[in-house]
Amino acid sequence: MEERYGFGEKEYMACCGSTRFAKLMLAASPFPDFQHALDSAKDIWFNKVDVNGWLEAFSAHPQIGEVPSSKHHNDSFAQWSKGEQSTAFATATDSTLQELAQWNVQYRQKFGFVFLIFASGRSSPEILTELKRRYSNRPIVELENAAQEQMKITELRLSKLFSTKQKPGLISTQ
Amino acid sequence: MEERYGFGEKEYMACCGSTRFAKLMLAASPFPDFQHALDSAKDIWFNKVDVNGWLEAFSAHPQIGEVPSSKHHNDSFAQWSKGEQSTAFATATDSTLQELAQWNVQYRQKFGFVFLIFASGRSSPEILTELKRRYSNRPIVELENAAQEQMKITELRLSKLFSTKQKPGLISTQ
Repeated sequence: MEERYGFGEKEYMACCGSTRFAKLMLAASPFPDFQHALDSAKDIWFNKVDVNGWLEAFSAHPQIGEVPSSKHHNDSFAQWSKGEQSTAFATATDSTLQELAQWNVQYRQKFGFVFLIFASGRSSPEILTELKRRYSNRPIVELENAAQEQMKITELRLSKLFSTKQKPGLISTQ
Repeated sequence: MEERYGFGEKEYMACCGSTRFAKLMLAASPFPDFQHALDSAKDIWFNKVDVNGWLEAFSAHPQIGEVPSSKHHNDSFAQWSKGEQSTAFATATDSTLQELAQWNVQYRQKFGFVFLIFASGRSSPEILTELKRRYSNRPIVELENAAQEQMKITELRLSKLFSTKQKPGLISTQ
C-alpha cells in the first residue's frame, strides 16, 4: 500500500492566495510526499500562474509589520502570517514600525502591490533595510523578487501542512 | 529662441495606453526634440510605470490580426494600430487568420493579456511563428517581452506625433 497526501483548495489557498495555484495544486493532488508537492507548487507558481494570479496572491498578504486584518478570511493564512512575523514583532520599536509603515506606503505606490518578504526569523530593522534596498529596483525586477519571496513562504506553509497531516489525514491508495 | 514640443495627455495615451505613462509624459513636457521625448518615454515606461500600468497599456491593443474595435475610443490609437498591421493584413489568408485567432486565445489564457508584437512590416505567417515560439515562455519572461514590444510601438507612434507636429504645433519659449 502506498500512502499519498492530498489537501483541499482552501488549504492550498492558505499556502498561496492565488486561485489558479490552488486549483492546479488540487488537480495535481494527491502527492506521494512533501518533495513532490513542492516540485509541483514551484512548477505551477512559476510556469502556470500568470501575472494576474501573482498579484492576487500578493494581495492576500497583510502589510509587513501589521497583524492580518479581518479581511483575510482564511484563518490558517492569518495564523501563519502572524507566526512568520513573530521575530519582526518581537524586535520592533514604535519608531521602526512607523518607518516600516511609511516605506510600505511608498513601496505600494511605486510597484502597485504590497512589499513581500519571507519574514521568518527576521528582525524589524533587517526587514526595513531590505525594503529600502529593494525600493530602488525596476518594477519588473521587484515583481520577480516578490514572486520568489512568495514561493519561500509557500514552501514553509506547505511543509507545515504536511507535518500536521502526516498522521491522521492520510489518503490511502492500493 | 528655443523651440520645444509638447503634446496632450490624449496624444500620449495614443502612443501608449497607460494612464500613468501619459500623465508622467505630460509632466515631463515640453521636449526640445524627439530624442529627449523618447528618452523620457523609456525611463517612464521601464522605471516608473508599475505592472498594473503595463497591463492597462496592453489591454488598449486589439488582438493581432483584428481591426481595432469601437471599444478603442482613441481614434489615433485605432488608426495607427491598423496602419502598423497593414503588412500582416495584406499577407493574411483565411487559414492564417483563423490559426492566429486560435493561438491568440491560447496565449491570453496562459498569460492573462493580449499577444503584443511590433507588427510594422511583418507578414502574418511571421507573426504566427513568433506567437507560437513565445507561447512556450514563462509568464514573467513574456511580460517583459510584451513590455519591450510595447516600447517599440510607442517609439514609432511618438515619432509620428513629432513628424506631424513638427511645423504647426510648436510651443515657443525664449
